[in-house]
Amino acid sequence: MTQAPNLLDLVRDDLTRVEAKMRTIGAHAYGPMAEAFLLLLGSGGKRLRPALALAAYGFYADRASEKTIAVAAAVETLHTATLVHDDLIDEALVRRGSTTLNAVWNKGATVLAGDYIFARAAGFAAETDNLPVVQLFAETLRIIVEGELRQLFSSRQWRQPKEAYYPRIFAKTASLFAAATRSGAILGGATPEQEQALYDYGNHFGLAFQIVDDILDYAGDEATLGKPVGGDLRQGIVTLPFFYYLSAQPDPEQVIARLGTGAEGVAATVSAVRASGAVELAFSEARALADQAKADLAPLPEGPFKAALADLADQALARKV
Amino acid sequence: MTQAPNLLDLVRDDLTRVEAKMRTIGAHAYGPMAEAFLLLLGSGGKRLRPALALAAYGFYADRASEKTIAVAAAVETLHTATLVHDDLIDEALVRRGSTTLNAVWNKGATVLAGDYIFARAAGFAAETDNLPVVQLFAETLRIIVEGELRQLFSSRQWRQPKEAYYPRIFAKTASLFAAATRSGAILGGATPEQEQALYDYGNHFGLAFQIVDDILDYAGDEATLGKPVGGDLRQGIVTLPFFYYLSAQPDPEQVIARLGTGAEGVAATVSAVRASGAVELAFSEARALADQAKADLAPLPEGPFKAALADLADQALARKV
Repeated sequence: MTQAPNLLDLVRDDLTRVEAKMRTIGAHAYGPMAEAFLLLLGSGGKRLRPALALAAYGFYADRASEKTIAVAAAVETLHTATLVHDDLIDEALVRRGSTTLNAVWNKGATVLAGDYIFARAAGFAAETDNLPVVQLFAETLRIIVEGELRQLFSSRQWRQPKEAYYPRIFAKTASLFAAATRSGAILGGATPEQEQALYDYGNHFGLAFQIVDDILDYAGDEATLGKPVGGDLRQGIVTLPFFYYLSAQPDPEQVIARLGTGAEGVAATVSAVRASGAVELAFSEARALADQAKADLAPLPEGPFKAALADLADQALARKV
Repeated sequence: MTQAPNLLDLVRDDLTRVEAKMRTIGAHAYGPMAEAFLLLLGSGGKRLRPALALAAYGFYADRASEKTIAVAAAVETLHTATLVHDDLIDEALVRRGSTTLNAVWNKGATVLAGDYIFARAAGFAAETDNLPVVQLFAETLRIIVEGELRQLFSSRQWRQPKEAYYPRIFAKTASLFAAATRSGAILGGATPEQEQALYDYGNHFGLAFQIVDDILDYAGDEATLGKPVGGDLRQGIVTLPFFYYLSAQPDPEQVIARLGTGAEGVAATVSAVRASGAVELAFSEARALADQAKADLAPLPEGPFKAALADLADQALARKV
């Protein structure tokens, strides 16, 4: 059996063009901001979101069009903008091991820096000259922000039903993954069936990806994560592992009371969740969603992009992406 | 001589439709936010920006199209979003006499509320189905935010040249006025010459409007303004009256030193600016720009909209808008 091609390798040349486009944000920014923007945009992880847009387009043409580069840059730039404002909200001082803007600048400048990056993301989206893409982009921005508001207002509501979790991770992660794949499909000239298939793939892959992320916040190790475990619980965010753990407790109120006792109570709860079967239950849901993502690809032609996207879904479970 | 029609009266019916559209932001928002959004969107002054978009469109059709209502709502919603983030930056607790969101909510929720309103503004802009309008909107958002960053980073640089002032007030005010009139013109099917004329009118009127605003921060009275005078100086923002005042001082360093002594030094400087000829010099520039705005209207057909826009420029000087 031949090994599936790696998605990031497949789109590497086009990703370089996306990076160059994103760097224009720093280059054209007001003097004192320029360096800060370059730092922010450069610290951006694996560029999974633009890779998804490029992969979806890859089914239809060999080299990404300028409009596809623009939408890939728009998606990653939007993601970066939300991180800047998230850091402000979380008061997080370290993200991905590097100091955040918030730790260096005052809050006002950080709010505006995020706004500026949002504005540039909107500009990139507008460069696609494609109204459905622009409308999808505006709608996705709304979904993401509304999800963050929902998360903020449901903080420390420990007894949230599972039904509240999935819309929240759709808003937080899957909506932008799905917008990326759908945008690539639209610009590539996909049939309606294929456009829907690529949207569904992005959605299901995104949900699986976020569940694994939420699992690692309990079961990961800090060196690999680049941040302490238990962050969600400390911020009062209920995710799938905690939901399953709490559901299995004979006395949930005791667990909730312990969470109110501060850092030690949170640490003890993280250990308890980790040692319980909750992580395994959550993982089986991620596995089902990754399988669904692979099945979503059925209407798409065989080839390296299909193989790479299917492989990516498995990699998400092994947390190699 | 017949009296010129009042612009806000001319477009009153369409403005009501804009208001209704903006209220959908509150109505569709996540529960705990809905009331807050309605409050924010309802506290919005005279709706001058959407009125400008409607007036520009008014040259071409009697009743605004749905797309024109959408762009008028987009412009005012964008303005509201910037006010929400501005309040966070200024730490202003009272705006237009009513309590700001920031005084009630925590900073995180305020950042996100502003982001959500930005997202809805982008959604309204996308509803125009008109790419030049969408692109103008994204570009204007970038200009506004970059201007705010510039203002923040140039705070307390008392010896700024006059050349720094105009780009700043273009970004802060005139860019959105000009985007409003230009969008109305585009949607109305204006000739390129008329589109440019309406853009120029919005720009020059916006500059005049902001200069008068900056003058009132020295020469206005607090009851009418709904806020204390001298706010710009306290925040370290250099405007035209201060520029002229400082330029005329035999010993500018003494003025700057006094500003460093706190509230009393600022109050004394406000009084000194007010009593000097600086306000009159600034006002003569506003007058010239308002005259330019009226002259810009030359390529447009005579009628109630032309008369109302010309009258509006005069009203701005008398601060009746």
